[in-house]
Formats: sequence, C-alpha cells, structure tokens
Amino acid sequence: MPRVAVIMGSRSDWDVMSHCVDMLSTLGVECEVRVISAHRAPDALFSYVEPLESRGFEAIVAGAGLAAHLAGLCAAKTLLPVFGVPLPAGAFEGMDALLAIVQMPAGVPVGTMAVGKAGAVNAALMCVAQIARKDARVREAWARFREEQTRKIEAIGDPRDS
Amino acid sequence: MPRVAVIMGSRSDWDVMSHCVDMLSTLGVECEVRVISAHRAPDALFSYVEPLESRGFEAIVAGAGLAAHLAGLCAAKTLLPVFGVPLPAGAFEGMDALLAIVQMPAGVPVGTMAVGKAGAVNAALMCVAQIARKDARVREAWARFREEQTRKIEAIGDPRDS
Amino acid sequence: MPRVAVIMGSRSDWDVMSHCVDMLSTLGVECEVRVISAHRAPDALFSYVEPLESRGFEAIVAGAGLAAHLAGLCAAKTLLPVFGVPLPAGAFEGMDALLAIVQMPAGVPVGTMAVGKAGAVNAALMCVAQIARKDARVREAWARFREEQTRKIEAIGDPRDS
Amino acid sequence: MPRVAVIMGSRSDWDVMSHCVDMLSTLGVECEVRVISAHRAPDALFSYVEPLESRGFEAIVAGAGLAAHLAGLCAAKTLLPVFGVPLPAGAFEGMDALLAIVQMPAGVPVGTMAVGKAGAVNAALMCVAQIARKDARVREAWARFREEQTRKIEAIGDPRDS
Amino acid sequence: MPRVAVIMGSRSDWDVMSHCVDMLSTLGVECEVRVISAHRAPDALFSYVEPLESRGFEAIVAGAGLAAHLAGLCAAKTLLPVFGVPLPAGAFEGMDALLAIVQMPAGVPVGTMAVGKAGAVNAALMCVAQIARKDARVREAWARFREEQTRKIEAIGDPRDS
Amino acid sequence: MPRVAVIMGSRSDWDVMSHCVDMLSTLGVECEVRVISAHRAPDALFSYVEPLESRGFEAIVAGAGLAAHLAGLCAAKTLLPVFGVPLPAGAFEGMDALLAIVQMPAGVPVGTMAVGKAGAVNAALMCVAQIARKDARVREAWARFREEQTRKIEAIGDPRDS
Amino acid sequence: MPRVAVIMGSRSDWDVMSHCVDMLSTLGVECEVRVISAHRAPDALFSYVEPLESRGFEAIVAGAGLAAHLAGLCAAKTLLPVFGVPLPAGAFEGMDALLAIVQMPAGVPVGTMAVGKAGAVNAALMCVAQIARKDARVREAWARFREEQTRKIEAIGDPRDS
Amino acid sequence: MPRVAVIMGSRSDWDVMSHCVDMLSTLGVECEVRVISAHRAPDALFSYVEPLESRGFEAIVAGAGLAAHLAGLCAAKTLLPVFGVPLPAGAFEGMDALLAIVQMPAGVPVGTMAVGKAGAVNAALMCVAQIARKDARVREAWARFREEQTRKIEAIGDPRDS
Repeated sequence: MPRVAVIMGSRSDWDVMSHCVDMLSTLGVECEVRVISAHRAPDALFSYVEPLESRGFEAIVAGAGLAAHLAGLCAAKTLLPVFGVPLPAGAFEGMDALLAIVQMPAGVPVGTMAVGKAGAVNAALMCVAQIARKDARVREAWARFREEQTRKIEAIGDPRDS
Repeated sequence: MPRVAVIMGSRSDWDVMSHCVDMLSTLGVECEVRVISAHRAPDALFSYVEPLESRGFEAIVAGAGLAAHLAGLCAAKTLLPVFGVPLPAGAFEGMDALLAIVQMPAGVPVGTMAVGKAGAVNAALMCVAQIARKDARVREAWARFREEQTRKIEAIGDPRDS
Repeated sequence: MPRVAVIMGSRSDWDVMSHCVDMLSTLGVECEVRVISAHRAPDALFSYVEPLESRGFEAIVAGAGLAAHLAGLCAAKTLLPVFGVPLPAGAFEGMDALLAIVQMPAGVPVGTMAVGKAGAVNAALMCVAQIARKDARVREAWARFREEQTRKIEAIGDPRDS
Repeated sequence: MPRVAVIMGSRSDWDVMSHCVDMLSTLGVECEVRVISAHRAPDALFSYVEPLESRGFEAIVAGAGLAAHLAGLCAAKTLLPVFGVPLPAGAFEGMDALLAIVQMPAGVPVGTMAVGKAGAVNAALMCVAQIARKDARVREAWARFREEQTRKIEAIGDPRDS
Repeated sequence: MPRVAVIMGSRSDWDVMSHCVDMLSTLGVECEVRVISAHRAPDALFSYVEPLESRGFEAIVAGAGLAAHLAGLCAAKTLLPVFGVPLPAGAFEGMDALLAIVQMPAGVPVGTMAVGKAGAVNAALMCVAQIARKDARVREAWARFREEQTRKIEAIGDPRDS
Repeated sequence: MPRVAVIMGSRSDWDVMSHCVDMLSTLGVECEVRVISAHRAPDALFSYVEPLESRGFEAIVAGAGLAAHLAGLCAAKTLLPVFGVPLPAGAFEGMDALLAIVQMPAGVPVGTMAVGKAGAVNAALMCVAQIARKDARVREAWARFREEQTRKIEAIGDPRDS
Repeated sequence: MPRVAVIMGSRSDWDVMSHCVDMLSTLGVECEVRVISAHRAPDALFSYVEPLESRGFEAIVAGAGLAAHLAGLCAAKTLLPVFGVPLPAGAFEGMDALLAIVQMPAGVPVGTMAVGKAGAVNAALMCVAQIARKDARVREAWARFREEQTRKIEAIGDPRDS
Repeated sequence: MPRVAVIMGSRSDWDVMSHCVDMLSTLGVECEVRVISAHRAPDALFSYVEPLESRGFEAIVAGAGLAAHLAGLCAAKTLLPVFGVPLPAGAFEGMDALLAIVQMPAGVPVGTMAVGKAGAVNAALMCVAQIARKDARVREAWARFREEQTRKIEAIGDPRDS
C-alpha cells in the first residue's frame, strides 16, 4: 500500500522527480506517482489530493517549475505534510519555483527542498524521516542509508589517491 | 451590474487593492470585491470564480503577496481574462509574488502588473481598455483619462517653476 | 481582417514570437506581424501603433529583450490592451526585459507574460480570452482548447505507464 | 514530554521563533526551546541534537539568519525530520539564510519554510501535520485549526463591509 | 544658453535630479530642466528631444524610475550623448530602472549612472567632462573640482581625529 | 592620431571588446588599444591613463569582468569621459561587473554600458556621439549610421516575408 | 607599533568600521586607521599602501560601499593579506559592494567578509587569527575570546528563562 | 610538513579545488587534501579540524557548493584562519554557496573568495600571503609570482599584435 503521493505538474518533470521515487523505493516506502497540473487540471488535483489522507497516505511530495503552485495547492487541500520540490524550468533556473513554493503564508505549510535533483531526493528522505517515526523497518533502512553515506565519504580521504 | 471581480488573498491587501477599485469606479466600471485566500479557502475560491463568466463578468483582477497563487488559480478556473497584481509582503518586497504570478506555464495565461499600488491601478486600466472594446461610454472615459493625464504632465514644464 | 498586432523589436525575436502567432491562428484569431524597434525606428513604431485602434484591431502583443521598451511605448500610444512578452536576450536571461516591461508606472498599463516561449503563447491566449468576450466563435475555440488541454494532462496518470 | 525541539542560533531570534512555539502550544504539542549557535557553540549543538531521537522527540525546528548553518547541522546529526526557518538578519533580508538552508545537498534533508514569522508559524504546523499521523488528538486540533482559519477568511467577503 | 537638457519622468523625481542640476550649475554649465514622461506624454517627449541638437545642446540627462524608458527613448530620437540616471521608485529599489536603462541594444547607446543621488551628480559630471573637451573654462572648473575633492578626502587622515 | 583609448583588463576580453574597436573604425574614429589589468598592473594603468588627455585623446573605454575596477580606476586618474563595459566572466554572467562599474560614488563618473557585446558597441557610439560635437565628419558618419540602421529595421516589415 | 592598517573609502564608513578597530584593540592588536578613497585619492592610496609591508604591518582591512574598489586596489599594491568589508550604501544594501570585492580575478586575492558590522568585526578577527600564528599573546587573547563567546551562548539555554 | 589543509565537501569539487593545491605547490607551500562533507560526515569533519592547529598547520581552505556550510564549520572548530571557496553547483551558479559562506555572523570569521576557479587560486594566495609573514622563502616566491604576473600582462600591449 502506497504511503507517499508523488505529484508533478508536467510529464517533463519526471526526469527529475524519478529520483524521488527511486529513493523512496530504495528505502522501502511505497509511493503512488501522478502527473496533475494545478493550472491545467485544478479540479482533478483537488479530487486527487482530498482523499489521500483517508486512503492511508502519510505525506505528499509535489514537484513543479515556473510559477509553481502545485505544492501550495496540495497543502491547501490536505492535513498531510506536503514537501515541495522547485524544478528548474524556463529563464530563471528555478528561482521562480523556489520563491513560489517556499514563501507560503502562515497557516498552510509546505516544507521546501533544494531546486532540482537534490531536492527530489531529499523530499523522499523527509518522508522517510517522518515515516521512520512510526515504522521501525523504515527507520532501520534510513539509519543504514545514512551510515553508508557517511562511510562512503569518509573512505575518500585525499581525492588524489582515488 | 458588476463587470470586474477584484479578489485579494488577505484582508491586509485591501490598502493596495483599493486603488484598483477606485480607478475602476472613476472610469465607470462597476466591480465586485472579495477577500478569498487560495490557500486558506481553496474551495470557496473555486466556487466563486467558476460562475463569474456566466454571471456576466468581463475580467478578474487578483492581488496577492508572498507565494502568490491566487491569480494563477483564478486563471485555471475561468475563460475570462485574469490580471494579477503582485503585492509587497514579507522579506522580498514582492519579487516572490511577481515571479509566482508572471511565470505561468503556457496554456493558462495571467496578465501581470507592476508590484504594489501602480500595479493595482494598472490592472483596473487593463480591464477598462478591454471593456472599452465593447462599451463606447467606457472607451470615452478611458480616452478622457489618458488625455487628462497627458495634459497634466505636459503642464509641468520646468519643475522649478511649480 | 487582423484583430491582433504582434510586434517584436528585432528579427531575431521571431523564433519565440512565432509561437504567439501560431496560437492565435490555431484559435481562429487573425493577426498582423511586424518587426519594429522602439530604439532604432521610434517614429515608425508610433506611426504603426497610433492608427491600430481605428483600423479595427482589438489588442497588441509586443515582444522584446534587454531594456525592453517596446510594450511600454505601444501602451503609451494606444487605448488598446497591450500584452508584453519579455524575451531572454543577453546576460540576464530575460530578468532585464521582465522588469523593463512589468514595472510600468500607474496610468499606462501593460499586461506582462512569462519570459520566453510560455509568455509568447500566453500573450496570444490573453488576446483570445479578451476577444472571446465579443466573439462567440473565438470563445468556443478557447473553451475547446482548455478542455482538450485538461483532458490531455488528466490522461497521463502515472508517468511510468506512458 | 516535549516532542519538538525548537532551536535558534541567537537570543535575538526569539522574537520571530516565539511564534513557532506559540503555535505548537496552541495545537497541543509540547516543545523544548534552546538557543545554540552552530558557529559559536558547535560541540554543544552536536551534544544537544544527537540524543533528541532517543529522548523521544519527533521533530526539530531550527531558525537562523545570515549564513544559516543551524538547520543543516541538525540534519547532519539526527534521523529526525528537521524544519528550517530562514530569519531576516543583516543586509539581504533573509535571502542569504533562505539559500543557506534550502539548498542542502542530496542525502541530508531539511524542509525549509518561508523567511521570518510566516516560516516560524508554518514550521510548527509541519511538525503538527507530522505528529498528527500518530496522535489523534493532535490531528483533531490541526483539523479544527484549519477549519477555523477557512471559516474566518470566508467570513470577510467584501473588505469594504468590515 | 543652456547646453544640457535634464529631463525626468515625473515631478517626484526632482528631489534626486536637482543634485544633477546643482552640480552642472556649480561647474558653470547651464541647463534646461523638464518633466516629460515617456509613457504619459510620448509625443511631447519626441517633440522636445528632436530639436535639442539644432538648438545647440551638447548632451541630455534623463532620470526615471520603475520601467525607466525615458533615457532609451531620448537616445532613440537624438544624435547627442544621453546619460541615464536610474531612480529608486517602488519595490525593487531601482534595480528595475537600472536594468531598463543600462541594457540598451547595440546601436542606440545610453551611458548609465549609479542609482539615485550619486548617479544624478555623476551624470552632471559626465556632461562636464565632455563639454570640457571643447570649453577651456569648463575644463578648468572640472579640474579644480577634482583637485578640491581629492584635497578634502586626503585631509581627513585618521577619522578619530576629526 | 587616436582619439579614444580602448583598455581591457585581460587578453581574453578582446573577443568582446573588438566590437568596440570595429565600430569606432567604421565611424572614422581612430583608437589605441591596450590590455592593462587594474589588479595585476596598477602602476602601468596609472602611467598609461594619466597622460591620455595631454596626448590629445577625447575619451576612454574600459572593459572588464568580475570585480571590474578598471573603468573606475581610469575615471579616478583622468578628466576625460570614461565609458565602462561590463563583461560576462565567471559565475554571475556579468552582474558582478555591472554593479562594480555602474555604482560609482558621486564625484568620479563612469558612463556604463550593457553587459557584453552590445555594451562594447555602444561604448564606441557614446565616444562617437561625443566627438561628433566637435568634428563634423564624425557627426555625419554617426547620422548616416543611425539612418541606415533605421532603414534596415523598417525594411523588414513582416518577418515571415523575409 | 601598529600591525594592521584599517582603511575606509569615506568618512561616513567610520560608524561601521569602528567595530573592526574596537575588536582589534580588544584582542591586543594595534592598528592605524585611515580614510582614503580609491576613486577620489588614488595616488594617496597607492602611496599609503605600498610601504605598509616594509613599515612592519601584517595585514590590511579595507571597508567600502557601492562600487567598492578599495580592497582590490590595496591587494594590487601589496603582498600583505588584505581583508575586504562590503558596506551597505545606496540602493542595493551592499550586494554591489560584496560582488565588487569578492569577485577578484585569480592572482590578486582579497579575503571578503560579511556585509556591514558583522564583516567589520570578523575582518578584525581574521587579522587576529593570522597574527596569532606568530604572537603567542595574541593567540591567547583570541582563544580566550572564543571560549568566552561559547560560554555566553551556552549559558542562555531556554530564551524564555532569561 | 603540510602547512595548509585543503578540504572540500565532495569528490566532485576536486576539479576546481585542484587549482588551489597546484598554486600552493607552485609557491612552495605544502598542503594536506581531504574530502570531508559537513553534512554527510560532521563528526569526521570535527575530528579532522580540531587538531590541525596543534599539528602545526597555518591555515585552512574549505571549498563547497550549494548550502555550503563547510567553511563556517571549520571556522567554528579552530583558531586558524579559514578561507572559503564557493563552488558553482546546482541551479544558482554559486550565489547560494557565496552567501552561505560570506555572511558569517560576528565572532566566527571566514575569509571568502570568488566563486569557482579564481576563488580556489586566490584562497591559495591568501594562505601564501599569510605564511609569507613568517617564512622568507615563501615571501620571496610570492613576490616573484606577482612580479611575473605583472610582467606578463604588461607585455601584451595591443592585443591585435599578439
């Protein structure tokens, strides 16, 4: 049963957002993936987001570029935690999407991640860190991932040796 | 009968958006004014925007600050022309609102105005310019307003004389 | 008979602005296309813009890059609605053009669109949305376009399936 | 027993971060509050953050201005979800703090909130939304808060009437 | 007989632009001062700028804020050197005016000065430096001004002594 | 006899600054070209700039990237008009060079041009416009250049025809 | 005998730069303080900076605003370490000064500090940290300062208690 | 025996940071090179940095991209001078790293260099300039390097000749 909904505003966002899905799957968190545009299909977005909590989901990840309204709209329609991933589309390399996601007014929160692939990966890890509070198996996977990550970087030492 | 809907995301936006309403009224275009937050009352926003066209409205003005999603959401729910006014709230003096409004993806257009009071006034004038295409009385008021404006600035001459 | 004038500041803007012309034509709105530089041919610009209203045009689209004065100058010389498209030329990827177009002072309005191709397409759609207020055939084309657009994005679902 | 640790980099951050603490308390989530600077007391920070998970905490909120390293450092030392609040100190009104918090590399996530008071409030709400997944009483308070918030904004209607 | 035309886009620009006029007068260069808006009085602007060269003027200074088109328009209508002064109006503290003035396309040049008062003073000095190439009395005043300026700053030494 | 000194901070700036030299030569203004770094050869810079006026030069063009101090230093050492060309080197695409050149304090003026090639061309044209005030042959070349430029753009008309 | 030269570009910079001088004095490092403008007194600047090394100085601190060339010019004229402090003057709150100082080309280094007072204090501490490598008494003062600083922040604990 | 520690946050930073190591080696300053991530290996970073002073090191260079906390963390754990190099990773071309490094609060200083390769080279030269205060051989190498650099640029003259 999926616990995280990964939504993106356009088919072309999949290249980046797939890193979110891969990371969730690596750490044993099932997810449902959807392309739903806040601007081109607002009713479908609302219909999809509203029942996610009662369907048993634990969190939502929303990735979008340009005037990125997707994450804020999800947050407006759910009590679940929402994580936003700004994507670098168009002229401003994601600064537009970053500000359009992170500057939410008080009362409707979105946890915002870095622009692009790092943000997509880390949105998955925010969900993992949260679900780890309830699910010991996910916590273990999350702990192992972090230890491995630390081990790998510590193993490099002098970059001229490798 | 009101022809323009002027929506703003928060009660505190009224100080700036009142300049839009005043300008519409000066040029003889009736409007309906509403505070409806895209994030705090998304369903009310959709319910309000959807029937505006069939109610006989000609255009929508939406003013919001921060991660300003209001104009984009209006545009997503109507075939009417939508004009967005970025408001200077919070740390970035309206740059966040400007990018969140103007960088709409292809397919759902918002005509974006300057940040703050100048934008609020000019959003009214965009509606006037549009309605003037159908209504000779409004066109006449619009023409007179522009002529007067030109006369006033031309009358200044050397600023040390006045 | 053309109803929209599409003006651009330089021959090299055509690559982007052609998307505006294509979209107008797709939705059944005829347009006239001109390259006229506000800086290199200011008199020609004024001579072209001034009679557009009496020639029966309904709106103007002006696309320019760098210190983009074209849209503001058109607005200064007409009562028609003017839509500005900032183009990404030079070092700042269109941020210069965006600010030079959107930050118009109160009294002379320009409806500003996103930087680049999305803005060119949406400028066409702003004209369409406006003309649809007077022309039932254009309104129908506009409604069909939006429905189709919604259907297409709703048909994607999970991006891994397609 | 406190479930959220609210850390800030300097005594002067309390004016803004108190809004986070107030909101947590309003929604029935106890928290522990500490001033610990990542730069002036790095060892104290590590000693404080490391045992938070085993002490039963569910999340960390870290608020800091300028070159804001606090949230990232917390994230580096815990498996708990970390929410970062950029504070507007110094010349750049919080843009430095925003980028220093949100642009975390893949592998160590921080959920970033808006700059300043809105971000402080929403960091509390991210914790609430997360804890609501495990605690029905918190979920109820969170649902009530959102409903009330919606009711209040919907009650305004025309701002000229109030 | 005036040799420099100092134009500004609005009456409210006089506070800053008066520093330009004062500096010209201090160094013995007579000027003519006008408020003429590029957007509100485009024809008056063209009519004023076109004959300036034949009237014996040597240079033009144009100060404007927001989407500052004034300097570029002057440059489009004259062979005289044009110096632009970006003024800090509205939300972006003159960054909009700076980019709208400095980013002129090849072929129509504007020499751009700093935002605000320093720019207004320095625009005067650019005119002075240019006129000094033809007028020995102005060159002498310019040389004396610079020497005095140097003497004054060199006289300070340790700021704790004064 | 050269009348304009074209200085650049590095050998690699020649690609852009050659457009300045070409334009000067096209309009019949001889120039002297030098690579002199303000940071790597400050004494050589001062020795070169100081006698330029007495050698009969009329203006200086200085092109530099990054923390571009070249134009400001030239201005500090001469009474001649100085035009600065910001070059796009390094991470910020010339925004650093633009601000380092344009934001000169009151008392030491630099006329700043657009970033990159357009700025290099226009710096030449500023010199031309200035020298045209003294030299009828240069004025004639400048007038012809502008007329031709206008004729060329006016000849395009509809871009689809060419 | 002074070991650090603290230079600033204008008398008005003393309010901020005095924090640098105070910090040096607190930690037992004597300094010489001068107001010397790179633009208004370039020869005096060169004459002052060149002999600093042979006079026994160990480092230079240079504070300036706007197009801040002071630190780079010092670095161009000495082998001593130079630390630059961007000051927030004019429209851009020090972003211009920051970029004009930090973006030095390879070969002539400037260690850049934060904009404003924090930068002024930290420039002093960079000199202290450097001089501590040669002078045990300064090292001891530096160590004590850091310990005290840590103790103070660790003593705060919960900000509501104090 | 190494006198400078060159640390970078990721293996991929080596391409840029190798220029720092090469420059140190060219001028006869031995260094130790390590890849240690502040976020992925915070304990290893602290363990490595803390004893550097007692091991006889004179300075630390830290290069990192994105939310670059490495230099600030080093500074928090040592009394040695720390020089930070912002690296251009991700969407914002190093502006994020620059602000995250340079905007350190008062009390814990980092000398910040230009973004990318120029900064990496200049961080080496800052160490050289500092060590030259104690080591005559390094001072001599530093002086020769600067003279050669000056000679080379002065030798160019007119770029068209070479």
